[in-house]
Amino acid sequence: MENVKIIALKESILEDNDLDAQNLREELRARGTCLINLMAGPGSGKTTTLLSLIPHFRDKIRWGVMEADIDSDVDAKTMLAAGIPSVQLHTGGMCHLDADMTRQGIRALGDEDLDLIFLENIGNLVCPAEFDTGAAVNMTVLSVPEGDDKPVKYPLMYEKSDILVINKIDTLPVFDFDRDRVEKYARMRNPDVRIFYISAKNGEGVAELAAYLLQLAGSVTGKSR
Amino acid sequence: MENVKIIALKESILEDNDLDAQNLREELRARGTCLINLMAGPGSGKTTTLLSLIPHFRDKIRWGVMEADIDSDVDAKTMLAAGIPSVQLHTGGMCHLDADMTRQGIRALGDEDLDLIFLENIGNLVCPAEFDTGAAVNMTVLSVPEGDDKPVKYPLMYEKSDILVINKIDTLPVFDFDRDRVEKYARMRNPDVRIFYISAKNGEGVAELAAYLLQLAGSVTGKSR
Repeated sequence: MENVKIIALKESILEDNDLDAQNLREELRARGTCLINLMAGPGSGKTTTLLSLIPHFRDKIRWGVMEADIDSDVDAKTMLAAGIPSVQLHTGGMCHLDADMTRQGIRALGDEDLDLIFLENIGNLVCPAEFDTGAAVNMTVLSVPEGDDKPVKYPLMYEKSDILVINKIDTLPVFDFDRDRVEKYARMRNPDVRIFYISAKNGEGVAELAAYLLQLAGSVTGKSR
Repeated sequence: MENVKIIALKESILEDNDLDAQNLREELRARGTCLINLMAGPGSGKTTTLLSLIPHFRDKIRWGVMEADIDSDVDAKTMLAAGIPSVQLHTGGMCHLDADMTRQGIRALGDEDLDLIFLENIGNLVCPAEFDTGAAVNMTVLSVPEGDDKPVKYPLMYEKSDILVINKIDTLPVFDFDRDRVEKYARMRNPDVRIFYISAKNGEGVAELAAYLLQLAGSVTGKSR
């Protein structure tokens, strides 16, 4: 197997992250790449969600993944083994990524021809939401076992989420998780959030999510699908 | 129901948190209170774990809870409704608590006669591990649905954990979670970690955890149980 490329991210020296993020967003749009910032708590199934998209994106789009982690390289290994261009970004101990760190990752990923790049952010519902990464959209995964009250407890994360993916719906019978409640709470934070229900494990609902993401990537980059 | 006391924590002005934490630890020992810093990712079941301890602690120990959260007060409400002295600590947007913030919480809790206080830290596997709160021990909850690889991905949290509580073991049949693997990974980070398996929901394993915590509180405060 191909070796995992590991990038030790340098702390940003730029003072205005919002401006830097806006610049990065414009650059990516100009080169025709849609960047999605994927956020979640630990163990929500971010990587498994990306894996579940593979068959739906095949022959339709060129895409790659930046896996951010404190220290390990398991996620980039997993994506590479599945045939998806990936790099592992190490933050050292840092709890989030900013636009400059995202830019370092995109440079390491290399391929200018990618239509869509996912940044799998640090598994953390607090800090990543505070920093604009330069992504076109923010997508948050919430898994059923975590509970339907998370938008109440992590307000900023859910304010910043354009897309909310409720994962592990195959376990709905095992947990006390109310769809009406989670939707109410999520829309309190962002009335315009798009909500998808999936089981990345058994594939339920993934086709709808994939179709939406393909359409979104097309509209961001101006390429029709 | 009693109103929830909500404390908006002030950011610490002290520069040496380690020294402040050591001082707080000594003060608590002197007054005969064992402080446990309870950490976990979002939705692991920290509050439910505390609720599950109630029948086991009844008439054996005087205890209270500080519930830290970005913004909400649902956890302190839950504990108060169950008859346990509780305060809600709000960090604003901050992703962790330090010793000075913990001290503000203990002051708000008020009762000097408590044998045991739990600090339910922010649901976050990154930042809380970086700050000594002054607790006698760190206890981390990992729930089965999050996966057995979390000690690989969040090294510092598991280095700092004296007690690891694996929660939601009633869902083991539904998830690919290997007990040998999680124990191997956790001991890589801290060879001396004490590991307990519980279902806070159905009570399985909670008696053993409660007995250990009672003994621990006794040994920290010098009071025999």
